[in-house]
Amino acid sequence: MTADTSPTGPPSPRRTRLTPERAAELHEAVIDLLCEVGYEGLTMDAVAARTRSSKATLYRQWKGKPQLVASALRHHKPIKVADIDTGTLRGDLLALSAVADPARMEQDMALMRGLGHAVHTNPDLNRALREELIEPETAEMRRLLQRAVDRGELAPDTPAVEFVTHMMLGAFVVRPLIEDRPADPDYLTRFVEAALLPALGL
Amino acid sequence: MTADTSPTGPPSPRRTRLTPERAAELHEAVIDLLCEVGYEGLTMDAVAARTRSSKATLYRQWKGKPQLVASALRHHKPIKVADIDTGTLRGDLLALSAVADPARMEQDMALMRGLGHAVHTNPDLNRALREELIEPETAEMRRLLQRAVDRGELAPDTPAVEFVTHMMLGAFVVRPLIEDRPADPDYLTRFVEAALLPALGL
Repeated sequence: MTADTSPTGPPSPRRTRLTPERAAELHEAVIDLLCEVGYEGLTMDAVAARTRSSKATLYRQWKGKPQLVASALRHHKPIKVADIDTGTLRGDLLALSAVADPARMEQDMALMRGLGHAVHTNPDLNRALREELIEPETAEMRRLLQRAVDRGELAPDTPAVEFVTHMMLGAFVVRPLIEDRPADPDYLTRFVEAALLPALGL
Repeated sequence: MTADTSPTGPPSPRRTRLTPERAAELHEAVIDLLCEVGYEGLTMDAVAARTRSSKATLYRQWKGKPQLVASALRHHKPIKVADIDTGTLRGDLLALSAVADPARMEQDMALMRGLGHAVHTNPDLNRALREELIEPETAEMRRLLQRAVDRGELAPDTPAVEFVTHMMLGAFVVRPLIEDRPADPDYLTRFVEAALLPALGL
């Protein structure tokens, strides 16, 4: 909304920034299209048509489809690791488990199906997801664990620390494969209590 | 190779069983095609053409494409959990870590890409993989852990026991997502030592 009104500089490619409400509409349309047609099937034309915007608007805000999709996924996340700070490591990890919202589970499964293949085969999407989602969230996870070390809850040299993100994401991803059902908060809570906290010596 | 020569019974649909060598050729062609064109792109016609066999032969041996693919993947596995029995739980879990063969890693990644989407979207493939691969291997994993309990290495009520398969498979699956590189034996060994064994109280 903060249009670049500088009278001297060249016109910024970002001068017509979207309002947060408008950006949320665009992100939501992208999530819906991902569920419906998958990453390969999603086109900038379809996003533009569904949101009654121009492709030029989309390309002004996002470099391209991989960045638009990564941005939509980042905003779609129900909670950010950075927002979690319960005062104990156990509380923080259990708060993360509650992220798997049962009401959204069907959509999340559809999203994973829609992204599944492209995540592995499309280097641009892979890079955009890494930069927009995975790296920021693993950095926040390191901060969350560092707070536990600072509080004296967690020994700084606990070997499992480097694998906490792997364990949480792994538990989430493999349950459908092994048990043919999505990861829900009850399952993730049991996983944290039974496996993750003991691995950390807690 | 044991043709059904019974003079009385009706002709068995399996009477012309393939030799193990011929079955291995067919399985290998399926693996190659999965890497090249993915599950959706793989046709029984292509398997028949590449192996100079008839589609009738394929359908005599396997009910259909999902079963043929599951069978090929089962035979493609470099090691079966049932073959591992080192005498200690630590030894068994480290032996599992060595399964990730660096020489095959590129092919394994191509395979995962080729299967990725269909695993989630195709119920017949999902069921065939569950029956042929996942259920037998998780049952063997339970036996491997039970042996550790019988030897007195592992407390029978260790809560993490139910999540050992989730942790091993999860560590394998998420490394490419988090670190942009495949799970190799060195990484899996570190995971077992740093996270899995401590989770089991070892």
